[in-house]
Amino acid sequence: MDKIKIAVLGYGNLGRGVECAVKQNPDMVLAGIYTRRDPKTIRPLTEGVKVCHVSELEQPQDIDVLILCSGSATELPVQTPKYAAMYNVIDSFDNHHDIPKHFANVDAAAKASGHTAAISIGWDPGLFSLNRAIATLALPVGENYTFWGRGVSQGHSNAIRKIEGVLDARQYTVPVESAVEAVRSGKNPQLTTRQKHTRECYVVAADGADKEKIRETIVNMPDYFADYDTTVYFITQEELDRDHKGLPHGGSVIRSGKTGWDLENDEVVEFKLTLDSNPEFTSSVIVAYARAVARLAKEGKTGCNTIFDIPVAYALPMTGEEIRKNLL
Amino acid sequence: MDKIKIAVLGYGNLGRGVECAVKQNPDMVLAGIYTRRDPKTIRPLTEGVKVCHVSELEQPQDIDVLILCSGSATELPVQTPKYAAMYNVIDSFDNHHDIPKHFANVDAAAKASGHTAAISIGWDPGLFSLNRAIATLALPVGENYTFWGRGVSQGHSNAIRKIEGVLDARQYTVPVESAVEAVRSGKNPQLTTRQKHTRECYVVAADGADKEKIRETIVNMPDYFADYDTTVYFITQEELDRDHKGLPHGGSVIRSGKTGWDLENDEVVEFKLTLDSNPEFTSSVIVAYARAVARLAKEGKTGCNTIFDIPVAYALPMTGEEIRKNLL
Repeated sequence: MDKIKIAVLGYGNLGRGVECAVKQNPDMVLAGIYTRRDPKTIRPLTEGVKVCHVSELEQPQDIDVLILCSGSATELPVQTPKYAAMYNVIDSFDNHHDIPKHFANVDAAAKASGHTAAISIGWDPGLFSLNRAIATLALPVGENYTFWGRGVSQGHSNAIRKIEGVLDARQYTVPVESAVEAVRSGKNPQLTTRQKHTRECYVVAADGADKEKIRETIVNMPDYFADYDTTVYFITQEELDRDHKGLPHGGSVIRSGKTGWDLENDEVVEFKLTLDSNPEFTSSVIVAYARAVARLAKEGKTGCNTIFDIPVAYALPMTGEEIRKNLL
Repeated sequence: MDKIKIAVLGYGNLGRGVECAVKQNPDMVLAGIYTRRDPKTIRPLTEGVKVCHVSELEQPQDIDVLILCSGSATELPVQTPKYAAMYNVIDSFDNHHDIPKHFANVDAAAKASGHTAAISIGWDPGLFSLNRAIATLALPVGENYTFWGRGVSQGHSNAIRKIEGVLDARQYTVPVESAVEAVRSGKNPQLTTRQKHTRECYVVAADGADKEKIRETIVNMPDYFADYDTTVYFITQEELDRDHKGLPHGGSVIRSGKTGWDLENDEVVEFKLTLDSNPEFTSSVIVAYARAVARLAKEGKTGCNTIFDIPVAYALPMTGEEIRKNLL
């Protein structure tokens, strides 16, 4: 059987994660890395893989699925619809508020060109969404809770790095364990933003910088930190490089609900991730769903999909018989 | 919009659970309860619901989906293919070893008659299977573990009740917490049956019965108890009725796997259920997937499905837009 030809646009943490994931899936091959940088500066891990400038995508390339590994803020809203007009595409768009618009744009482009797309694939949005859905269908009377962490938020780390006098920073999102336990016990608590998560910041300040002023700027930053209990630790660059180099993450989706004629029974559903590498796990999910996109495209199912629309069997490298035998 | 007309065959714990679940889903109506007993002896919870003898199913009934709530050992292997020849059907067939044969029989019957079927829907098989699949697609290099309990196993309870001198019994399957923790920590341990679960039995013995002989018979029973560390407690019928009346259950599906070019990162995925009522939760999942069966039938997708083949969106009572807005 022909291998599925995967290409990746963008060679940052996520793009390298895709490369690692393709290596674990023998039915796939990495057909190309496309980048906005000078291709000569890219050192891929995969021997012999083609590295091209992004502009080459304008001419038809021999690709089954193009994985878009760019940022959700400004890049994916343009790129995913654009390339859905030429290729089968998949992204991990995670700007929750803009998903309806992004879906509509990608759907229109993919349908017009006869291609297949999937958006917002990863773990949140992605596997967390799927488990919110599973728990919701199983327990119509109930409430969903999502906790993130302990893990590095790159958006929050970047926000700190932009403060004057800050050389480097790492921000951890930390779930409040007593809140998680209250939800797990089926108590259905009402929780404020502050009661659900705290934030820990490890900051490298420039020589002579006003640390108290940096701390104040962080903890009062609207949207990012003001609504949370935030702790700031000043450390050296050596300490940051030694102790905070990884990108761990994870969290829990919990639904607590009621069954019975008079709602007399409590049922709790939890999905939990504990990840050493957020980008590698995200990429690994994307690559599996790229397989689903390739299969849907072969069946002629054009347009945009989310993880709710795709049977899980399509993302697995097994026959229906194997899946039923090994996983049911 | 017309409500989905659900009928149930069998009015035991699972059938009553279906009745409770239909009440929580406003897009459905319980169109009938079919039973092998004398219909006059059935006291349904739903006001005005039709109770009929099973034989009436031989004449076409006004049903969108028939939910089969019989036993997996001898009843479902006959009933599900039989009724798939006349109705859209769903069951919770849980005899893992016989699933391939059951699937083939139901698929043939449903395809021949132009109906839609789903088998092995519930939590295990069911939501546990789906999460084994999700974790497997995300982590091709890794290992799946399933722990059950703490919860009542009705099969094991029944096995004890058949022993001479036993009046009543309740058996709890208990996961070994140290084994669960070893798996959660990503250690990928090799675990024997004995290392994963223990069994606790609460037994009411007849007056004058030889309790030591009963204990010996239980702990040495092949398949059911011999491979486990089993503890037997003798209690009174009053204690059993007071302390062990419920049917709690649950458990965890955990996959621990590796990502990275040299498999340098550990990732752990866990799906966990903590259930007050095993039959009510099982029924609640079945009822949601009955909605999916009704929709697939409307689209003309005939034949048998498992939980891997059905997009989660089909089982949710929301539009695609609502699902993307609220759950993605």
